[in-house]
Amino acid sequence: MGSPTSRLAGQPGSSGAIGAPTRRHPESLDLVARWGRHPEDLGEAALAFLAENVGIASPWPLSDPAGWQVRESALTPDEVGELQRIAGDGGVLLDPASRIAWTGGASYADYAARRDGRIGVRGEAGDVPDAVVLPRHHDDVVALLAACRRHGLAVVPFGGGTSVVGGLAAHGRRIAVGMDLMASLVSVDEVSCLATVGAGITGPRLEPLLAARGLTLGHLPQSWQRASIGGYVATRSSGQASTGYGRVEDMVESLRVATPEGTLDLGRGPASAAGPDLRGLLVGSEGSLGIITEVTLRVRRLPTESRYEGVMFPDFASGCAAFRDLAQGRASADVMRLSDEAETAVTLAMSGPRGVTGAAFGRYLGARGVAGGSLAILGWEGTDGDQVRDRRAAAWRVLKRHGAVSLGRRVGRSWRKGRFHGPFLRDTLLDLGYLVETVETAAHWSGLADLHGGVTDSLRASLGPRPGPYVMSHVSHVYETGASLYTTVIAVADRADPVGQWHRAKYAVSEAIVSRGSTITHHHAVGRDHAPWLAQEIGPLGVDVLAAVKSRLDPDGIMNPGVLLPREDRRAR
Amino acid sequence: MGSPTSRLAGQPGSSGAIGAPTRRHPESLDLVARWGRHPEDLGEAALAFLAENVGIASPWPLSDPAGWQVRESALTPDEVGELQRIAGDGGVLLDPASRIAWTGGASYADYAARRDGRIGVRGEAGDVPDAVVLPRHHDDVVALLAACRRHGLAVVPFGGGTSVVGGLAAHGRRIAVGMDLMASLVSVDEVSCLATVGAGITGPRLEPLLAARGLTLGHLPQSWQRASIGGYVATRSSGQASTGYGRVEDMVESLRVATPEGTLDLGRGPASAAGPDLRGLLVGSEGSLGIITEVTLRVRRLPTESRYEGVMFPDFASGCAAFRDLAQGRASADVMRLSDEAETAVTLAMSGPRGVTGAAFGRYLGARGVAGGSLAILGWEGTDGDQVRDRRAAAWRVLKRHGAVSLGRRVGRSWRKGRFHGPFLRDTLLDLGYLVETVETAAHWSGLADLHGGVTDSLRASLGPRPGPYVMSHVSHVYETGASLYTTVIAVADRADPVGQWHRAKYAVSEAIVSRGSTITHHHAVGRDHAPWLAQEIGPLGVDVLAAVKSRLDPDGIMNPGVLLPREDRRAR
Repeated sequence: MGSPTSRLAGQPGSSGAIGAPTRRHPESLDLVARWGRHPEDLGEAALAFLAENVGIASPWPLSDPAGWQVRESALTPDEVGELQRIAGDGGVLLDPASRIAWTGGASYADYAARRDGRIGVRGEAGDVPDAVVLPRHHDDVVALLAACRRHGLAVVPFGGGTSVVGGLAAHGRRIAVGMDLMASLVSVDEVSCLATVGAGITGPRLEPLLAARGLTLGHLPQSWQRASIGGYVATRSSGQASTGYGRVEDMVESLRVATPEGTLDLGRGPASAAGPDLRGLLVGSEGSLGIITEVTLRVRRLPTESRYEGVMFPDFASGCAAFRDLAQGRASADVMRLSDEAETAVTLAMSGPRGVTGAAFGRYLGARGVAGGSLAILGWEGTDGDQVRDRRAAAWRVLKRHGAVSLGRRVGRSWRKGRFHGPFLRDTLLDLGYLVETVETAAHWSGLADLHGGVTDSLRASLGPRPGPYVMSHVSHVYETGASLYTTVIAVADRADPVGQWHRAKYAVSEAIVSRGSTITHHHAVGRDHAPWLAQEIGPLGVDVLAAVKSRLDPDGIMNPGVLLPREDRRAR
Repeated sequence: MGSPTSRLAGQPGSSGAIGAPTRRHPESLDLVARWGRHPEDLGEAALAFLAENVGIASPWPLSDPAGWQVRESALTPDEVGELQRIAGDGGVLLDPASRIAWTGGASYADYAARRDGRIGVRGEAGDVPDAVVLPRHHDDVVALLAACRRHGLAVVPFGGGTSVVGGLAAHGRRIAVGMDLMASLVSVDEVSCLATVGAGITGPRLEPLLAARGLTLGHLPQSWQRASIGGYVATRSSGQASTGYGRVEDMVESLRVATPEGTLDLGRGPASAAGPDLRGLLVGSEGSLGIITEVTLRVRRLPTESRYEGVMFPDFASGCAAFRDLAQGRASADVMRLSDEAETAVTLAMSGPRGVTGAAFGRYLGARGVAGGSLAILGWEGTDGDQVRDRRAAAWRVLKRHGAVSLGRRVGRSWRKGRFHGPFLRDTLLDLGYLVETVETAAHWSGLADLHGGVTDSLRASLGPRPGPYVMSHVSHVYETGASLYTTVIAVADRADPVGQWHRAKYAVSEAIVSRGSTITHHHAVGRDHAPWLAQEIGPLGVDVLAAVKSRLDPDGIMNPGVLLPREDRRAR
């Protein structure tokens, strides 16, 4: 924090793109624009839409990493030696570029601060970890945590670095533990559809290995390209196909966790009544109790048949009613996504000349009574073509009752092609000078419309004045009792104080959510950003229970301090 | 324990049936044979089968309750006064009959001891609670626990009294908290398919109230007639239709728990990523952390279409392969039950002349290649007839690949009619002098055959010599990665030491289960009986985590002491 700093050596001085440290993800890592831009720029129609509906912004240049300063590592030679004895010489990275690469996450606040050269956590200049350690085995991690405990070092477990809630945001003397070298497919039980993996493996690495055995995990969050399986589990993540494939907690058969007090091996067989579910206590623990090192995942037979299609509803309300009817009628598709009118409009406007827009298409929608309506994507998958066909037929018996019109398979294919573009698009919008942030929650069906209104209004009020912000939402995770609500907001960035602007909006929308009895997060986790609202969600006694568990597993409070629990009972020295 | 005892006053001296205390379940409660006998006795064929395959037993008479002695209540007048101020004069029962009625559970050890007049927990003469308290409101329960804490009284939460694992087995100065007066349907959200209930309500009371609104819970354990919803949740229960309707933990949207340290309200909306799942920590907590007072349940639309049928496989192995294929092919039925060859044989033998046996039937099975095979019951339910038909067709495409032969709907109907007879049949077998006990676990598909062999062999070895015992199993809860295994054993009871005989078998089979990496219980909970194996299942550090949670919520250890955790860190005075 007040430490001496060193210039970032050996970096190209021009673009900000400096390439990945050798052991990082194979994809190139852009230290500033973390995700990297999508090759396709926004078209003219999209730019015009933004200017008209959000406002005129001015380009937001990227800071030049050549000028970045990071504090020097505060580790003593003895401490470095001990870490090296555990992880090997090559497993302890002390160079500034690596320490930057393993700092912070992918929230708007992270992006905005980094873009302005305020690297490090929450914009505090140069506050990066003192070392990055890359363990190779579970026992290394156990030894590492014991060493950190002895030396009073905080530990930030680091998978893909994709937290959007300040989940990688410790301060002070600390190490980042990169899971990159614990990223193998350990074993597969093809009879039981189980795959054991090192927690550092990513979806894009795992899925081809599973596909070779006729299997798939089917967990497809937007952070797909970078997030690790351990990160999915630690944050209680949910993917785009969760309606059919389940949330990540539904995919964890068992898991192995290294804690400062030793190892936990949890989960025996497909189901158990042997007391409380301790797996569920570690899933969603966000690195605050230990490091998940190995996960045995429930995997599925790789679908041989799939059918994705676009569907248009007269409005968002009728689409929600249809989705409810599908879920409660046991006729859910595997992917179910419903955009509100605002998101539908922007989807049509931004998709450009090769997209689904065009005068003829508009006339078609108008003739079917769904112009200006709500766009949905429905996808069915399976290994039995007749079953996929029958399931779709059952769904369409429901959909027809709610005025749905099919837009055909082309729209479905187009959505699948672009399904992971969101994070890339964010960098493009930041380049143009726009704030873009997402908020997600969930509600019972009976409260969904009110929640949708409350979220929209609070973002509009806190990020005004007109013409922006543009607020748009979708439902993408459907349950029998309710659904998720995922809202994207685009506003002209306040370049004088982008983090302050974001913070005010975050506060307003979080209050709108929690005051309605909804959850502060459906699939992004708590991190630091949602921690102030956790006590309202689980009660002060609930927070005390979590603190008691943390005290037992992490008595010195070294694990990802400040994350999850709204206060820190103890801190690392 | 060494307390003065008083004769049970005002009881009829003949049959042992003394009628229920007024506030108990509406069904008559037999203090000795807790469940009561089924009106239909076993037929001649069944008796011959037992004699041939288990051995000759001699009738086991019921002890006469007129001779029972219970210790006098150890509560002081001040303590009684305080309980009465909380629960009302009528809410504190001190008479011996009530104190007996709210003692112990429904395990073989409970039954055998009670049959021989050793009422009270685990056969310790007369060790019944000092009072039964029947609170009416959540706040009463909070006040009650605070009072018990002040006075050093242990608390045994008591739903239907159906624990088969010693879950209601505290010793010493204690009260039983009966949930009978907190048994209403509190509210229904028909849009979201949610029903909030008082934890004391039973399935037979709840289902008609839900059916009137076109809804159902669909949780159908064998303890159906007596068990409470709160008991289901506290023991992580699973019903006969769990493959389609889910385990009880899948049915809990939110719950309210009174603990000695205050109230926990857990669960917001259909899903959340707001940290660890604390609901999952209270589900399965077996009264050791607090008393579940209210549960908001996920309910389903009441099926209007159903199709149940009998299916015969050539053998248990091919049936298991088919069930696996169904689960992994997303073609599961809602009810799936597969008997091994031994259970199939006894089902056919015991079902009598009106059942599925008979020479013509045997010739039919022989002609189809499945004589001596494995009987399965499959049931599909829904509100869309076409969907039920399509789902059944998808299942049959799988079943045919495994040599299955349909036995038609009559066998399915017969199973549904008798689905809750098991507990009644147990009393009948005890009358005849037979030990009858059930053991249940679960395994991955790849380990199921080995587990089946290990369970069978351990019971045979520990309950020999020949001809008995008779050991038979079924799979009744099916998951993508594995299945439950439920084993029934019948042996000639050792009348000199029935509990010791049971204990040796329990030890042998539990070791066989745990040594194979399987769970000590799939849906019966831990109680006292499984507590010695919990540390092997969740590890010593896992046990410590549970103890830390208990310390935070129940610092004086008054809640159901001795249950769940294998040791008691602290005990009530």
